[in-house]
Amino acid sequence: MASSTPSIVTHAGRRPALPSETRFDRQLGKILEHATEVFDEKGYEGASMRDLSRASGISLSGLYYYFESKEELLYLIQKHAFTTILERLHQRLDKASDPELRIRLLVLNHLEYFLANRRAMKVLSHEDEVLKNGFGSAIRALKREYYRICVGLVDDFKRQKGLEVSSRIAVLSLFGMMNWIYTWYNPRIDGDAEEIASEIADIFLHGISAVRDSKRTKKRAS
Amino acid sequence: MASSTPSIVTHAGRRPALPSETRFDRQLGKILEHATEVFDEKGYEGASMRDLSRASGISLSGLYYYFESKEELLYLIQKHAFTTILERLHQRLDKASDPELRIRLLVLNHLEYFLANRRAMKVLSHEDEVLKNGFGSAIRALKREYYRICVGLVDDFKRQKGLEVSSRIAVLSLFGMMNWIYTWYNPRIDGDAEEIASEIADIFLHGISAVRDSKRTKKRAS
Repeated sequence: MASSTPSIVTHAGRRPALPSETRFDRQLGKILEHATEVFDEKGYEGASMRDLSRASGISLSGLYYYFESKEELLYLIQKHAFTTILERLHQRLDKASDPELRIRLLVLNHLEYFLANRRAMKVLSHEDEVLKNGFGSAIRALKREYYRICVGLVDDFKRQKGLEVSSRIAVLSLFGMMNWIYTWYNPRIDGDAEEIASEIADIFLHGISAVRDSKRTKKRAS
Repeated sequence: MASSTPSIVTHAGRRPALPSETRFDRQLGKILEHATEVFDEKGYEGASMRDLSRASGISLSGLYYYFESKEELLYLIQKHAFTTILERLHQRLDKASDPELRIRLLVLNHLEYFLANRRAMKVLSHEDEVLKNGFGSAIRALKREYYRICVGLVDDFKRQKGLEVSSRIAVLSLFGMMNWIYTWYNPRIDGDAEEIASEIADIFLHGISAVRDSKRTKKRAS
C-alpha cells in the first residue's frame, strides 16, 4: 500500500546513498511535507520562504541548509513524487507479465500514491510548468520516463489484442482520468484506491479495446 | 465553432440585459482576457491588482469601475466560461435526441471551448477552490448544473443500452480526460477539437458500454 512517509526514495543502485542519508532525509522529508501544504494553500508564486519557515518551525537559515531556493524545494517535492511512483511501479511490473494486468498495476500504483498524497498531487498538477533550466529538465526527464513506460504497456496490450487506437491519446486520456481525481475524490463515496483503480482501468481497457477506427493512427506515430 | 470573443454571455431570459451592455461588456471582456493571462502566469494568489492594471493598460481606479475586488474578477472569469459552455451545450442538445450523439456533442462542446480558451481552462482548473461565500456558491451552482446535465446524458445512454456502470465515476473520468488536455494538447500533433473529441468520446463510450460489473452500482446511488 502507498505510504505517505516523506523520506526521499532514491532509485536503488542509481546514485550512492549520502553519508548522512537517514537523518538528513528525515528532516528534509519533514520540510517537503510542510512545503507541500504551503504551496497547496498559497500557490507556489504566493508562498514565501518566510511562510515555509513558519509552517515547518525551522529558521530561514536552517531551511537554506537543506536547499538553496524555493525553486529547489519545488523540484525536490516533484522529484520525490515521481521517483517514488516509478520505483514502486518497477517493483510491481517485475512480477507481472500479462499486458492487461500490467496496465491495471500501473493504474493502481498511480492512484495508490496520489490518494495517499493528495496535496502533493495538487501541487504537482498546479505547478507543472514553474521549474526552469536544470530543475525543469530533470523533472521532465522523469515524467518522460514515466510516460514512455505507460506507452510501452499500452503498445504491448494493443499488440496482444490487435488494436489500432493511438497510444498517445490513450495514455494521455488515462492520465487525465487518474490525475483529475484530486478534484473530486471522496473516500466515503468512492472507496479506496483499489476500487477506483479497478473501475477506471475497466473503462480505459474496454474503451481502447473497442476503438477500431484506424484513420488517426496512420497519420502519426503512435 | 468556439469563439474566444470575451463578451459576457448571459442565460437568455434569466437576467435582463444591462442598459449599456454592449460597451460595458466589451471593456469588461478585454479586462477578463488580460486578467486570465495574468492569473495564468502568476497564479491567482501571486497576481496583484497592479499587475492587472499593467497588463490591461487600465488604471487601478478604472479597474474598480468594473469590479470591486480581485475575487470578483476571478468569479467573472469562471462565470463567463461556465455560462458560455452551458449555453452552447443547450443549443446543441436541443437539436439531437440520440443518447450516444448527445454525449458526443457534450464532449465536442467542452473541448471546442477549452481548446479555444486554453488559458482560461488552466485558470479554471488551478483556481478551482479559491472563491468563497457568494461568489463560490454561484460558481458551484453552475458546475453542479453542468455535472447534472452530464449525469443525465450518461443515464439516458445507460438506460438505452442496459448498462450498469457508475454514472459518478463515468462522468468524473470523462471530465478528467477532457480537462487534463490543457497539459498536453499540441495542435500540430493532436488535430482540432473535432478530432480529439471523436477519439475521447470513442474511448469513453466503448469504455462504459463494456463495463458489466454491477457490484459497485448497487452500493450507491448512481
